[in-house]
Amino acid sequence: MTNRSDLTLGRRTMAMLDELARYSDDPQRLTRLYLSKAHRAAAEATLRMMQEVGLDSHIDPLGSVVGRLAGKAPQAPALLIGSHIDSVIDAGRYDGTLGVVLGLVVVEALREAGIVPTCPIEVVAFGDEENARFPTNLSTSYAFSGNYKTEWLESADEHGAILRDELVRFGGNPGGIAGIKRDPAAYRGYIEVHIEQGPQLEAAELPVGLVSAINGVTRARATVIGEAGHAGTVPMAMRRDALAAAAEMIAAVERAGAIRSDTVATVGVTKVQPGAVNVIPARVDFTLDARAPDDTVRHGMVTDLLDEFTGIAQRRGVTLTVEPFMDSPATAMDKTLLGVLENSVRSLGVAPLHLASGAGHDAVAMAALCPVAMLFVRCKGGISHNPAESITLEDGDMAARVLLDAVRTLVS
Amino acid sequence: MTNRSDLTLGRRTMAMLDELARYSDDPQRLTRLYLSKAHRAAAEATLRMMQEVGLDSHIDPLGSVVGRLAGKAPQAPALLIGSHIDSVIDAGRYDGTLGVVLGLVVVEALREAGIVPTCPIEVVAFGDEENARFPTNLSTSYAFSGNYKTEWLESADEHGAILRDELVRFGGNPGGIAGIKRDPAAYRGYIEVHIEQGPQLEAAELPVGLVSAINGVTRARATVIGEAGHAGTVPMAMRRDALAAAAEMIAAVERAGAIRSDTVATVGVTKVQPGAVNVIPARVDFTLDARAPDDTVRHGMVTDLLDEFTGIAQRRGVTLTVEPFMDSPATAMDKTLLGVLENSVRSLGVAPLHLASGAGHDAVAMAALCPVAMLFVRCKGGISHNPAESITLEDGDMAARVLLDAVRTLVS
Repeated sequence: MTNRSDLTLGRRTMAMLDELARYSDDPQRLTRLYLSKAHRAAAEATLRMMQEVGLDSHIDPLGSVVGRLAGKAPQAPALLIGSHIDSVIDAGRYDGTLGVVLGLVVVEALREAGIVPTCPIEVVAFGDEENARFPTNLSTSYAFSGNYKTEWLESADEHGAILRDELVRFGGNPGGIAGIKRDPAAYRGYIEVHIEQGPQLEAAELPVGLVSAINGVTRARATVIGEAGHAGTVPMAMRRDALAAAAEMIAAVERAGAIRSDTVATVGVTKVQPGAVNVIPARVDFTLDARAPDDTVRHGMVTDLLDEFTGIAQRRGVTLTVEPFMDSPATAMDKTLLGVLENSVRSLGVAPLHLASGAGHDAVAMAALCPVAMLFVRCKGGISHNPAESITLEDGDMAARVLLDAVRTLVS
Repeated sequence: MTNRSDLTLGRRTMAMLDELARYSDDPQRLTRLYLSKAHRAAAEATLRMMQEVGLDSHIDPLGSVVGRLAGKAPQAPALLIGSHIDSVIDAGRYDGTLGVVLGLVVVEALREAGIVPTCPIEVVAFGDEENARFPTNLSTSYAFSGNYKTEWLESADEHGAILRDELVRFGGNPGGIAGIKRDPAAYRGYIEVHIEQGPQLEAAELPVGLVSAINGVTRARATVIGEAGHAGTVPMAMRRDALAAAAEMIAAVERAGAIRSDTVATVGVTKVQPGAVNVIPARVDFTLDARAPDDTVRHGMVTDLLDEFTGIAQRRGVTLTVEPFMDSPATAMDKTLLGVLENSVRSLGVAPLHLASGAGHDAVAMAALCPVAMLFVRCKGGISHNPAESITLEDGDMAARVLLDAVRTLVS
């Protein structure tokens, strides 16, 4: 069977992941915030690993680690492979880092096989994906397409540290940011492998899956104001119960996510005032998070939902205000890159499952530079952003073989 | 028209309410907690007012103020009229005090008319109705039927002050509590006039209403445990969203209260964990408050509701625990006393509206001693426990005339 493997690539992947998991800002758990000491140490370790596999490497002015393998045609548009090495607080070791390590494993395997790619290959380890320290998000990958906003340098973390100062302390260079910008003509595509962070591959019993799109996201805060009253003395028909109204809206949110394919809609926060066992709620604040791989579908879903909210509020005589605070568009995957990945998945005997990415990734920012595609790897229980985050050796191996096969196809 | 009034009784009522509103623990707002300095001052003022209208009066060992008017037959069972003079923090001036003052106004009117009642009349101002300081509730009225529990003396307020010590400081006498107990044969009934604390009389444009029963109350805490997850990556069909489940239960509570007549059901508290915009809720804690004038109806409502909760939890794969923490029975009103009050209401040209009392009152405790009945007075906006609590001069006058008419009927 050609699909059998001695797990060599998987073991190499796990070993590199183990190496990078050593770098943490907290000795008790894995925490690697953007521009922290642990981020610097992990970036330097990544740099060494890149050099060991034969990449011409450097840490860029924003802290991203970039390694380049020359191709037969040095000026041909390059293929980018990567993800990020920053983490949330108390993180797992796979989120982001897996996509960086797999780039290195694939380059190493190509070189061991004596393959010289037709075009250059760049492996990149971004540094600001998790939005866990500064208010910035994807800033290091947005710099690749020239979309870094200089005001981001003035943003502060929760301790008041300014990004610009922390970047200098890290060894970065605010003056060099503009120079990170790449020429779109010089890049043929970006491939990112990432843990799924959801339960679909596990449920389908598949090691990997093909990302069909990265969902767009709408977020909003809603406030329902009714009238407080004595829970014993106000008859049901005379109430304007803010919580009963909100409960109906929460049910509508769940229904809105469920009746469309590939959409999700969530109320994650609900706060009730005054909040006493014998007082009819006067005010409820709740949040909405609605996502879809298609922006038209998402906007339609949100519009329908707000209409439904308005109807509920009018019927119940409560006041409704909705304040949207995020409208992030969906990111399409490149059909050519996705086709190559799908062929590789099939050729390794895995049924190709297409699934939307509910979470954002560096690929969102990279889509402003070049075509992008993503491969998801099954993770235990769909859990991420948690020490319990886990993939199997076999799945890591399969992901490496799929990526190697796809890259060989692209650079042959 | 015999129903016209020169508002003499109303003006007298309002003047007495003004006098008692002067006694507050807080100069900025009306707060008169059980056994506080303001309670002592208000009790002494009530004692003086009782003496002025000709009652043989004293402050009892628990701080209740009691005044007695002898009847033609000194040993005939007495008629009790009363309510309480303690208040919540930042209270209105009518809750409780109105029922005490109206007893005095009626006695004064009887004496001015030269009427000697056939039986004794007792007016009582209880002191521990609001449950606003100690965990005790209705302790001063429960003492009348010998139901005072001595362990209540050891309960503490939020500052750690012990009821027994505060009672002694007030001038009360823990050793005298047993002596407060009345002989049921010596009392023919207890009539309590109280503001409605709800909107029904205002909606019906009626000054007063007849209490059909005091609702029994069930209270419970419910906990729904589902599974946290990423709001973007877990498909709707694979979620175990604790908030979506709780929202369905909250809707069921509202429906349960609405589909039965005279019942109310309320969720006043809802707490969501972990409570982030992009995280599917893992746990929701909420409260249930269900009331009905009939205990069988109430127990049936709660049983049906818990069955419905269980069905929702099973269908959604979430865990449900429900912990009841109150089951307070309904208090029936005495048909004879209620009939007399209804005749008085009719004779004064007011349509008799019967309404259940959703809130508890001293009448609940007094029902263990003798027949009880209550008359409700319209209050502005249904608001109570608030400085905005308000009744009109005209409604106060009507309440006084109804009570005077009923008492005349009973003691003639």
